[in-house]
Amino acid sequence: MDLHDLLQENGSKLVLCVLDGLGGAATAEQPTELEAAESPNLDRLAVEGITGMVEPLGAGITVGSGPGHLALFGYDPQQFELGRGTLSAAGLGITLTPGDVAARGNLCTLDDDGLITDRRAGRPDAEEGERLTQKLREGVRLDGAEAEFHHVAEHRVLLVLRGEGLDPRLADTDPQETGVPPLEVRPLAEEAESTAELVTELVRQVREALAGERGNGLVLRGFDTSHELPDFTERYGVRAATVAAYPMYRGVASLVGMDVLGAPHSLDEQVTLLREHWDDYDYFFWHHKATDSAGHDGDREAKIAAVEAFDGVVPDLVELAPDVIVVSGDHASPAQFSGHSWHPVPTLLRGGSAGVDEVERFGERWCRGGALGLRPTTALMPLMLAAAGRLAKYGA
Amino acid sequence: MDLHDLLQENGSKLVLCVLDGLGGAATAEQPTELEAAESPNLDRLAVEGITGMVEPLGAGITVGSGPGHLALFGYDPQQFELGRGTLSAAGLGITLTPGDVAARGNLCTLDDDGLITDRRAGRPDAEEGERLTQKLREGVRLDGAEAEFHHVAEHRVLLVLRGEGLDPRLADTDPQETGVPPLEVRPLAEEAESTAELVTELVRQVREALAGERGNGLVLRGFDTSHELPDFTERYGVRAATVAAYPMYRGVASLVGMDVLGAPHSLDEQVTLLREHWDDYDYFFWHHKATDSAGHDGDREAKIAAVEAFDGVVPDLVELAPDVIVVSGDHASPAQFSGHSWHPVPTLLRGGSAGVDEVERFGERWCRGGALGLRPTTALMPLMLAAAGRLAKYGA
Repeated sequence: MDLHDLLQENGSKLVLCVLDGLGGAATAEQPTELEAAESPNLDRLAVEGITGMVEPLGAGITVGSGPGHLALFGYDPQQFELGRGTLSAAGLGITLTPGDVAARGNLCTLDDDGLITDRRAGRPDAEEGERLTQKLREGVRLDGAEAEFHHVAEHRVLLVLRGEGLDPRLADTDPQETGVPPLEVRPLAEEAESTAELVTELVRQVREALAGERGNGLVLRGFDTSHELPDFTERYGVRAATVAAYPMYRGVASLVGMDVLGAPHSLDEQVTLLREHWDDYDYFFWHHKATDSAGHDGDREAKIAAVEAFDGVVPDLVELAPDVIVVSGDHASPAQFSGHSWHPVPTLLRGGSAGVDEVERFGERWCRGGALGLRPTTALMPLMLAAAGRLAKYGA
Repeated sequence: MDLHDLLQENGSKLVLCVLDGLGGAATAEQPTELEAAESPNLDRLAVEGITGMVEPLGAGITVGSGPGHLALFGYDPQQFELGRGTLSAAGLGITLTPGDVAARGNLCTLDDDGLITDRRAGRPDAEEGERLTQKLREGVRLDGAEAEFHHVAEHRVLLVLRGEGLDPRLADTDPQETGVPPLEVRPLAEEAESTAELVTELVRQVREALAGERGNGLVLRGFDTSHELPDFTERYGVRAATVAAYPMYRGVASLVGMDVLGAPHSLDEQVTLLREHWDDYDYFFWHHKATDSAGHDGDREAKIAAVEAFDGVVPDLVELAPDVIVVSGDHASPAQFSGHSWHPVPTLLRGGSAGVDEVERFGERWCRGGALGLRPTTALMPLMLAAAGRLAKYGA
């Protein structure tokens, strides 16, 4: 059975709301952030629709944003792997061609012994970050490959290597701690040895170029090359657009061929953008970052507030009268763990033929008993299409 | 995504408690044995953790102990097949090498017409069983293969054939009923024809060797050869040990490379063994047989008592302060069926990052609503590792 053979166009509108890192983990002491939030509008969607729990990559597996979003888009994250370099490049609108190697770089502060003393080089502002990046552009010259540097934000830069015979199979050089030197550039396959030598030389030149700066070192993560992902519109028969304030999420959306509508940070501006483009698309991916950021910061109250902030614009979304709304997350980010976790993510599907279940509140303990059950996240895309009446019957 | 790539060591301790045949099947007249049991300590673990139901090999499939345990260890039982012969050999500490053929033999009583009158030959005691086995050793001489006999327990013996050109693809000769003769030795593949002839001759010699004894016949089950199973420690990064009173369970554990700590029959001695070796291992597989034995015997009250007996030592386990405890079973053995069944098995996961759900009792009707949902048994191993903090994030 090929989903593509079942597609039928009917003019319906679908919206996927991703509250990044939405899932939590209740403890004996406290409910999850979503359970604790006052979110009457999300609760109303739960009443009007069906609910459940989803797992992006199976039992016990904690995923990053890349695989989490691919799963939400209905792409098996085991089949389509994305490195941080690829995601960053896509987020900046930089096209990688086959053979290129991209990596996410973090400017850091090194002491006289070469040990990392600040993993974020004092979080340079946009101007300072761009100035340091410009120094890299001017100071690094490699034999056999061209090195491009792009400033992403704060201490984060994107490195793109273009040339012949490059291989992305290199280990991260970011030790992710202070008091130690950056890791050696280590090839993970024999074919990547010459690329490892090239990057070793690059890192050396970076230190020369940035000598005396607060950001005087560069650690690299997520070496990757270009990936061909099946086109979302071809795959699902919907014209798709993205509203996301953060580059990485615009990146993963553009990698599957979605249009990127803009990058406003305020939820109200995001709704305005949806409204302006409402007639131009069939499917909208709306990304809300604040839930995950608060989770990473270990700030339970901020995560609750981020849920409540999104709840506040749900009536504006409903007013646009989408046929089908899904609210879910790419993974869990319980504040008590200050990072991603493996816990299933509460999810609702409202509208079209979805029907209702008995769940009256949006939150883990209620959604567990909902009509969607516990499913792989990849099931949401066919469920959305089905609820919207966009899937024909299979077989006689 | 390879689970192995995500492993991280953190010194945590994991315990898998297998109450063999734990699952039951409620009827209109009565709850399951576990639901009926007074098990306050297991209930407390359910309160403190999350619960659900697991299936060893998918919907409707009743499994034996081998596949049931492989699933609990996270090995797909479809991928790794184990015959009874292999399990028995492993349980006795007998190493099979590639090319060997092993089978489980049951001594039986045959009448003058060659019909089975007692499938267990009066259940000989250890001494009598060993005496009969010695007669087999002395009385059987084959052309082209060496036949080893090992007494297992009561009427059960292990047959190991070693030689050139042997093939384990033979059907069981045990008709599993009385009043009929043992089945002919039947090859299941052309390549196994000469082995079938060899075993036919062996069975003939066995009858001569045991003539006049109460155990005067031998029926054979589970012909199999050696299997290479991936090493548990290599696979999951934990040093693993087993506490199991029955050879078959020690066998399946040793086949995946777990250490076997000993074989005491009393639960108190088993706890003592855990305590003595607590610092030496990261993962303990603790096997409790009595639930299944009672299920096989169709003895509902005994199965309830077997649950309650295990419940009695749960506080001792908790006192050892494992980071993560799983309580589950390899399959269901409802007493009303006097054997294994396909019903899902109630399961709890407590500790680490597992969190809590709203389930307050350990039993099928409560676990069904728990946070673990209904899952394949193979999901328990990644969930245990995840809860223990032993799995890194996948993807950027």
